[in-house]
Amino acid sequence: MKDIIIRRAEKKDCARLMELVQELAVYERAPDEVTVTLEHFVESGFGPNPVWWAFVCDVEGRVEGFALYYIRYSTWKGQRMYLEDILITEKMRGKGLGKLLFDRLIEEAKEKKFNGMMWQVLNWNEPAVNFYKKYYQAELSSEWLNGSLNF
Amino acid sequence: MKDIIIRRAEKKDCARLMELVQELAVYERAPDEVTVTLEHFVESGFGPNPVWWAFVCDVEGRVEGFALYYIRYSTWKGQRMYLEDILITEKMRGKGLGKLLFDRLIEEAKEKKFNGMMWQVLNWNEPAVNFYKKYYQAELSSEWLNGSLNF
Repeated sequence: MKDIIIRRAEKKDCARLMELVQELAVYERAPDEVTVTLEHFVESGFGPNPVWWAFVCDVEGRVEGFALYYIRYSTWKGQRMYLEDILITEKMRGKGLGKLLFDRLIEEAKEKKFNGMMWQVLNWNEPAVNFYKKYYQAELSSEWLNGSLNF
Repeated sequence: MKDIIIRRAEKKDCARLMELVQELAVYERAPDEVTVTLEHFVESGFGPNPVWWAFVCDVEGRVEGFALYYIRYSTWKGQRMYLEDILITEKMRGKGLGKLLFDRLIEEAKEKKFNGMMWQVLNWNEPAVNFYKKYYQAELSSEWLNGSLNF
């Protein structure tokens, strides 16, 4: 078994994280949607006012997965963790690494006194849908539509 | 025509805002879901590290509507406005106040250099769905499912 460590993302991981963000966008059939720059990404995570936090799955020194969250403010529930992205590289899937990452997120959310966590998943992404149902008995609701405007 | 002002929410508005949050939850058929306390709400908006911002629709000194947002971090797009709630009280609907609020949000998002804004709407909330389509030509996607865990 290889050395696997789940640890907090550091500034030096950012370039690799951007690669993985791009890999996820390709998987989600939206390869051209990633327009954020590395500079903005670094500044947003490690500048004076961080707006995102992440964990990485480090396999013998190489980052093979990550989970990135920000703090959501719900007027119903208060502060909650919003899991923006979670990804394990293709070759490392099926080994339980995703569960290690997700479990670490839950631990973090509880430590930070968030009263819950939220995320979205594409309705056709069966492996992910099954993962959330199998390990976390999560309900996945299709009742809300997503609206957006781009400037 | 009554005096209508769209202005930033202030600390003194918080109790009224909580009333309106509750009104919206009833409308959204989830009256028991609001568990946040006024204290946590005030602290989250006006404490040392604010996580939400809001505008109110002030009609002759009484708050008859509000829009509340937080900053979302998208790994694809960078920082975006996430519109958490928008509501006009029942008796004041149909007078264009929602559009005043939404236009003010767009202005704010552009001023703050967000590259877009996002929100969710219940698929059965026809008046809201029509509002977003009519005035903002917004696409409303049903492709993403919402997952959540409560601690």
